[in-house]
Amino acid sequence: MRIYDIIEKKKRALALSEEEIRFFANGVASGEIPDYQAAALLMAICIRGMNEEETFHLTAAIAESGEQIDLSGFGEHTADKHSSGGVGDKTTLILAPIAASCGVIMAKMSGRGLGHTGGTVDKLESIRGYRTTLSPEEFCALVKKNGIAVIGQSGNLAPADKKLYALRDVTATIDSVPLIASSIMGKKLAAGAKTIVLDVKYGSGGFMKTPEQATALAETMVRIGKQYGRRVAALITNMDVPLGNAIGNALEVKEAIEVLKGRGCPALRTLCLALAATVVRLSLGIDEGEAERRVTEALDSGRAFDTLRRWIIGQGGDEAVLLDPSLLPSAPLSLDIEAERDGYISDIDALGVGETSLLLGAGRQTKEDALDMGAGVILHKKTGDRVAKGEPIATLYASEEARLENAKKHFLSAIAYSDNQPVLPPLIYKTVI
Amino acid sequence: MRIYDIIEKKKRALALSEEEIRFFANGVASGEIPDYQAAALLMAICIRGMNEEETFHLTAAIAESGEQIDLSGFGEHTADKHSSGGVGDKTTLILAPIAASCGVIMAKMSGRGLGHTGGTVDKLESIRGYRTTLSPEEFCALVKKNGIAVIGQSGNLAPADKKLYALRDVTATIDSVPLIASSIMGKKLAAGAKTIVLDVKYGSGGFMKTPEQATALAETMVRIGKQYGRRVAALITNMDVPLGNAIGNALEVKEAIEVLKGRGCPALRTLCLALAATVVRLSLGIDEGEAERRVTEALDSGRAFDTLRRWIIGQGGDEAVLLDPSLLPSAPLSLDIEAERDGYISDIDALGVGETSLLLGAGRQTKEDALDMGAGVILHKKTGDRVAKGEPIATLYASEEARLENAKKHFLSAIAYSDNQPVLPPLIYKTVI
Repeated sequence: MRIYDIIEKKKRALALSEEEIRFFANGVASGEIPDYQAAALLMAICIRGMNEEETFHLTAAIAESGEQIDLSGFGEHTADKHSSGGVGDKTTLILAPIAASCGVIMAKMSGRGLGHTGGTVDKLESIRGYRTTLSPEEFCALVKKNGIAVIGQSGNLAPADKKLYALRDVTATIDSVPLIASSIMGKKLAAGAKTIVLDVKYGSGGFMKTPEQATALAETMVRIGKQYGRRVAALITNMDVPLGNAIGNALEVKEAIEVLKGRGCPALRTLCLALAATVVRLSLGIDEGEAERRVTEALDSGRAFDTLRRWIIGQGGDEAVLLDPSLLPSAPLSLDIEAERDGYISDIDALGVGETSLLLGAGRQTKEDALDMGAGVILHKKTGDRVAKGEPIATLYASEEARLENAKKHFLSAIAYSDNQPVLPPLIYKTVI
Repeated sequence: MRIYDIIEKKKRALALSEEEIRFFANGVASGEIPDYQAAALLMAICIRGMNEEETFHLTAAIAESGEQIDLSGFGEHTADKHSSGGVGDKTTLILAPIAASCGVIMAKMSGRGLGHTGGTVDKLESIRGYRTTLSPEEFCALVKKNGIAVIGQSGNLAPADKKLYALRDVTATIDSVPLIASSIMGKKLAAGAKTIVLDVKYGSGGFMKTPEQATALAETMVRIGKQYGRRVAALITNMDVPLGNAIGNALEVKEAIEVLKGRGCPALRTLCLALAATVVRLSLGIDEGEAERRVTEALDSGRAFDTLRRWIIGQGGDEAVLLDPSLLPSAPLSLDIEAERDGYISDIDALGVGETSLLLGAGRQTKEDALDMGAGVILHKKTGDRVAKGEPIATLYASEEARLENAKKHFLSAIAYSDNQPVLPPLIYKTVI
């Protein structure tokens, strides 16, 4: 088998066989197929597409290209959740302890942030003492004890995806349903959970721009996961505007704690409960209404917060921080942003706010950048809110004056106003199950 | 300007601007654009195509990516000829002295062979003493004196093409009219001649498989050349079967000498006269009939052979070889191939014979391979000939027994027989002018 012939075939819009797809994924993972040949094939896939069977085989090949986590020792109720990127998305920190409080096993690996999107592992590291790397024995012991543990992604999980993703990122081959679906599901299948719930974002801050595109991607991923023997569902959710009010590592942890204490942004609470209910429903095999009742009870009773506490302490995190979030890292400088006119806020562009957070020091431009854990944005107003000129709509946090000034310009260009109250899209567009 | 955005644009089937195309070609030539990004863009171009304007700009950018030969000191009648690859194609050795005998200046650079196609420079090196590298001063003096000199391609001629071609060769992006046209014409424009005559092959041994494809390519190249201010024409010629009877370096030089002495294969003579007449007609601005008359006279009078003699001697070649071609390198071993049945020869697959020659040692599998100058194939029969079982149809030449045996199998699979006399396509399909 020669990679040249495989590239030629896809260039001519023909379907690749399982053997050809595995030859490609394994050759990329091992480094035997050079980047320029992989790039040519990725472009051909991006333009010519892949049918369902090809997409399934590529996903399976990526999942099996490296280590595969075996969670079978934890029984049938293991679950995982994936969000297709977003701004201000701290849902894992909230829904994981809710689901664990309902008897689901959340033995989870999470990623780091890059560019305008944040990563759960980065957020967790803003908690003093929290360890994102555990030995397999420690990890197992904690999952057994608390029903939950969250660590950083293993170096050898889906290595084919790691290389393909890096290449897609520089060759304009990101926006392809088969490539996105196989990348996300390849990693999730390798991570071993029996239940997988996907939060597929659409809008300015998401991968997909329209709810229809997000639905098509979600349907592909759900089908692949089921074909691989997992229980899978996806929520299609809006990411035109940031999720919740906080963007930035410690700021988001603080907001997550608020929600688990029964307070915080209603939209964020609603989405976390919907995701948690879907996890619980699929994992325990109960009906939708019962799942909703259980997760609401877990949150409102404080049991979910208690699970968060046991989880964080178990991984070395400082309990004091959870009880008094003002002990989290905070940036020394801040700048209030005022409304530029009277009217309604018609847009808070998620991508623009994500980039603002990056400029403030909360994110990474390249993989090597260090993070300023206290930096970020707090939104005082959301889309649809009425504002008067000069009223504070947000506060920016950073450790350097220059960053604040630079970020302010960027933030202002992300805000739009209108004279009439705007019609907002629903946060949850639909569920694919 | 970012290469990422250029790739994205072509992926979406949009036309690239002149600036974008120059940014790409220059970035490839300088090495600033990495192979994987160039490969992704090449695949996008291959699938999405390029319009005439884009193809022109890519050609100009390739031509101007390195050194450009200035032949203006030789006046208006400089001419060059290009063949789009082929098996047994020794036309340059014949038409160049014919055209020079008619007053055209043939100051020419030629390439080396790779794979199943031979190269003029390799063939010339089978003549003892012939130097394919000359100082610019020597080259000019010889062109002034004899009206002809042929050297190897300069290292810095169209460097963008050199890199792009190497990449296309391994990424299945060869068969694209804009990429083929810009590669061929980019080099030819940089080589400086005012008149360019193209021999565009179609058939099993050529780049293009059908005469229609070859015509489309030829029309694009002729248009580009004219737009760049050159006089250009193309002959569309058949390459289902090898050209002439000899395949292999010294064997082809011997056949070229035969033709210039007024003997040799009639089809080869016809094609060389047609190409030479097109060169003379365009370069001197005379009509078709007059050009045909002059080139036939130059050949039949022996003036063309005399020009060959002066050319070869001028570049250090041994005159004795021209007078007695049996002094050319010859392989110590030979093997006659006999007809396997009674009937007509219906096919001598050019690609198969080219590969046979390669197996005999006459060609290069990789750029570093050394050539066996005496190795190759002599065809005693051509397509359409009647043969009796056991009659010799070809002789293979090599320096090692094992090569002969291996090549024989390959050669036999390239031959097909029929009971009825086959209908052969015309050698010259049409002229694009």
